[in-house]
Amino acid sequence: MSKWLLPENLADILPAEARRIEELRRDLLDLYRTYGFELVAPPLVEYLDSLLTGTGGDLNLRTCKLVDQLSGRTLGVRADMTPQVSRIDAHLLNRDGVTRLCYCGTVLHARPSGLLSDRELLQIGAELFGHAGVEADIEIIQLAFQSVERAGVSHARLDLNHPGVVHAIIQADPALPGVADDIYDLLSSKDTPGLIELAKRLPDMQEASLQALLTLVSLYGGPEVVARARRVLPALPAVQAALASLETLMGALPDRELGIDLADMGSGYGYHSGAVFSIYADGWHDALVKGGRYDGIGKAFGRARPATGFSLDLRKLSSGLEPPPVARAIRAPWGTDSLLLDALRALRDSGEIVVQALPGQAQHLDEFTVDRELALDGGAWKVRAI
Amino acid sequence: MSKWLLPENLADILPAEARRIEELRRDLLDLYRTYGFELVAPPLVEYLDSLLTGTGGDLNLRTCKLVDQLSGRTLGVRADMTPQVSRIDAHLLNRDGVTRLCYCGTVLHARPSGLLSDRELLQIGAELFGHAGVEADIEIIQLAFQSVERAGVSHARLDLNHPGVVHAIIQADPALPGVADDIYDLLSSKDTPGLIELAKRLPDMQEASLQALLTLVSLYGGPEVVARARRVLPALPAVQAALASLETLMGALPDRELGIDLADMGSGYGYHSGAVFSIYADGWHDALVKGGRYDGIGKAFGRARPATGFSLDLRKLSSGLEPPPVARAIRAPWGTDSLLLDALRALRDSGEIVVQALPGQAQHLDEFTVDRELALDGGAWKVRAI
Repeated sequence: MSKWLLPENLADILPAEARRIEELRRDLLDLYRTYGFELVAPPLVEYLDSLLTGTGGDLNLRTCKLVDQLSGRTLGVRADMTPQVSRIDAHLLNRDGVTRLCYCGTVLHARPSGLLSDRELLQIGAELFGHAGVEADIEIIQLAFQSVERAGVSHARLDLNHPGVVHAIIQADPALPGVADDIYDLLSSKDTPGLIELAKRLPDMQEASLQALLTLVSLYGGPEVVARARRVLPALPAVQAALASLETLMGALPDRELGIDLADMGSGYGYHSGAVFSIYADGWHDALVKGGRYDGIGKAFGRARPATGFSLDLRKLSSGLEPPPVARAIRAPWGTDSLLLDALRALRDSGEIVVQALPGQAQHLDEFTVDRELALDGGAWKVRAI
Repeated sequence: MSKWLLPENLADILPAEARRIEELRRDLLDLYRTYGFELVAPPLVEYLDSLLTGTGGDLNLRTCKLVDQLSGRTLGVRADMTPQVSRIDAHLLNRDGVTRLCYCGTVLHARPSGLLSDRELLQIGAELFGHAGVEADIEIIQLAFQSVERAGVSHARLDLNHPGVVHAIIQADPALPGVADDIYDLLSSKDTPGLIELAKRLPDMQEASLQALLTLVSLYGGPEVVARARRVLPALPAVQAALASLETLMGALPDRELGIDLADMGSGYGYHSGAVFSIYADGWHDALVKGGRYDGIGKAFGRARPATGFSLDLRKLSSGLEPPPVARAIRAPWGTDSLLLDALRALRDSGEIVVQALPGQAQHLDEFTVDRELALDGGAWKVRAI
């Protein structure tokens, strides 16, 4: 096999695209900073049990493992940074009040989430710890919208859900907790025949539970779905509480185009405890942003804290945007003349891109287009069009 | 073991430090851009044989391995990005002329290079392909200096070496190529007794080779060392060529404080073919920047190209600088009043950091210091000192 072939679902990012991703990274980190989110950088690898604390089996399957040569223990390459940032909030910063943290880093998936999905993501996100109120969720959702709008995405749409609805239905029937992951999968793909098949394999499953699950599959659409759910779903207290929490959030986001899909389990790593959301836009077949409330996760680290946040993959965001712009550059000759060196430094200090032609070599550029040159004119170095 | 403990030689980077590293990253990538270096981003993991192509055994030992779940083949987590960027130049861009590429990404070391060294580095660097002349080396060395000076490092010192000197001595004696790695190690630690011990174990080794290696250990100091080396080292053509190449480079860098250490093997991954350099500064016990010429590496990918470049670890650079500055922020109340929202947006758009106090919560910040507040004053929201 050729030595320059890359493994499947992994890619090199080439000049103009790489620069655009770098600029999106800066724009978004600076946006989060203006809201008071502080930047942290957890390590690329950690002990596996620490990395998976409080998360579901899906994140385990998604995580690449390796052996630590210093301790002999198993390390995981992070597949999601949210649990790491939650660990930092719980133990390193250990503050009592509200903590806002943001981050941007590479995450790796052992298997791609879809046939065309990359296994390497540049995850960027913001997390708000220490506040259980809807105000925190609103700040996070508005910031997630601003993130994609800042990148130039128009007509972004919000999908809301609350995993508490499905959880309550599963917990109410002793036959179901053991097959919870199967139920999540079947619901996410709206697989009605699969749910009926599952019920046949579970003789103890209550008929009401099957009806509730089949009803869930049809509970998607606009904001009116929540009111419909109140009528047609079992009147379990936890179901009602989850629906009430969705109503509060919807009331606080009146300007947003909003969809509800009570069967979609959101980001899927199993740590969400409250309302979850996704942002979709034309040009991306999958959700661009995923987020929600996950008050439980810090508990595994010994310090439960309310938490809500979102993240997105900057590479995916960039891949659906218009082709990246090409920057203008100035060509300059090579030389050691101090007047030339002064002119080069002044231009570069002012932010101009100046490419020196090395002796005897042609040059090709993808990220820049050379439209001017630095030339000697009456004893002084001047920039002129070419 | 506590779930929040991290493996040895791995760390979380906390707010103010993380932001300073982010700003160094931006400053340096923008600096390289003004010279016409185009940004690329190779993948975090690759097939191991591709990742190690053209490099020495040291890089192999430094590389973490894992199994690719899609192909069953062994993947490596990159421990150095230079070979990857060389692969991109050779095969993806496939240009004939000069190509300047820069990059910034996480690299992981299976074992730390020193007791206190981190195993996760944020490697940033610039590589110039397609030009074999000294002009390219000068551009790279000057840019490396500008990188540390831009970060606020003063009194940076340059160390030059040329691995061709040691290579020539080893190749001239049939007894030595088999123990080349041992010789590099002994020379790097200036271990004279070790070299004598090695010679005793090699009955076929020539006495002249031992004398040459022992002489090398003493060949360090200022620029005059090169002239001394010409007199005291064996008059092998490859030794003379390497020394001539160092003299050319020294002549082109007259303003720099310069050291020569002919026994030090530089960056150590075994791919350098020409002059190599390190930049040292007070406050860092180890080299801050390493670089040099490595014309051979593309050959393994089927397309040999002249190449010269450098890289540094932004985390290490940041750790030796003065404590990072703390930014000023404005405190604002929480609310949904449209006048308040307009005031918040205008302040944030102008780059101000505005932290909204969530109902009923105290706040603590490391990255920012809150010195002003947004308050209602005669019906308008105004910023005032606190």
